[in-house]
Amino acid sequence: MNAQYPKQNFPVSDVRRYLEPGPVVLVSSAWQGETNIMTLGWHTVMAFVPALMGCMISAGNHSHRMIERSRECVINLPTTTLTDTVVGIGNRSGDAIDKFAEFGLTKGEASVVSAPLIEECHANFECRLYDDALIDEYGFFIVEVVKAHVAPTPKHPDTLHYKGDGIFMVAGETLDRHEGFTKVS
Amino acid sequence: MNAQYPKQNFPVSDVRRYLEPGPVVLVSSAWQGETNIMTLGWHTVMAFVPALMGCMISAGNHSHRMIERSRECVINLPTTTLTDTVVGIGNRSGDAIDKFAEFGLTKGEASVVSAPLIEECHANFECRLYDDALIDEYGFFIVEVVKAHVAPTPKHPDTLHYKGDGIFMVAGETLDRHEGFTKVS
Repeated sequence: MNAQYPKQNFPVSDVRRYLEPGPVVLVSSAWQGETNIMTLGWHTVMAFVPALMGCMISAGNHSHRMIERSRECVINLPTTTLTDTVVGIGNRSGDAIDKFAEFGLTKGEASVVSAPLIEECHANFECRLYDDALIDEYGFFIVEVVKAHVAPTPKHPDTLHYKGDGIFMVAGETLDRHEGFTKVS
Repeated sequence: MNAQYPKQNFPVSDVRRYLEPGPVVLVSSAWQGETNIMTLGWHTVMAFVPALMGCMISAGNHSHRMIERSRECVINLPTTTLTDTVVGIGNRSGDAIDKFAEFGLTKGEASVVSAPLIEECHANFECRLYDDALIDEYGFFIVEVVKAHVAPTPKHPDTLHYKGDGIFMVAGETLDRHEGFTKVS
């Protein structure tokens, strides 16, 4: 049984704090009564306002079709307690199994979208598809974070960062250099 | 005086090992005899073959114009020895100063592109503009890594990952989970 993290509402314009460092995320989706989860390491912040993220989800993923059709998803932030779950989800296709049941994860109700939150993650970012211009050519989904839920502690969660070949880097120490910034952003 | 890292040729299809974990990078460019460097935290891997990266470089950056015109750049990977340099470069505009001179960085000659390598970085990835479709609307440059130079040691460099508000996360320990992968990639 995985622990769940009580979360608070969080400003969507600040989600870069969790996503810009480049963690592996779990993307949940829903379409016609079915849900799915995929691991994603290929994403980038694209704007603060609106809070845009770009996500590479290749057409071979079951989630690609579900997000393209529902035009919604949730980006969930796992930490090291879920390392084996992240590996397991990344190595199973969602067209054959119910990943929430298979991996003992809890569906939380989102506020704005139909896709479920993953309660065992440190943060959940509800997203709507914002621009589908590069989906067909690259599998690049530009989504807007429309609602964010974040656990208030720990302040710096031990996120996972994928390097390929089965190797993850775990978030290390933090350095405060705000005094070197002319305009902190 | 910053240390320089002797580098070796590295397969471009494997550059995700260094970029997928989400580090801050330094992007160097050249145009009509002028060079520039910018910090970049908003990027994602987009494909292995061709080795595509997506980079968000807003139109307010001097580098935006230089890369759009020259259609080339170098993505350089700094580590913690360059933390103050990364902060300094991110807080000065390249239209007023020569950043290589100002920050004591050494220009290396690239193999394929005209933009200079930054010798003090752990790795240098020479890039050509691959698709300009989203530059005008988002400042999103899709580039192809055409040549990669990487220092053979350390195997896991202590990269910097930006969280906003002047706070960086430094790369921490690594976890090997390759046994959980059905097809390691």
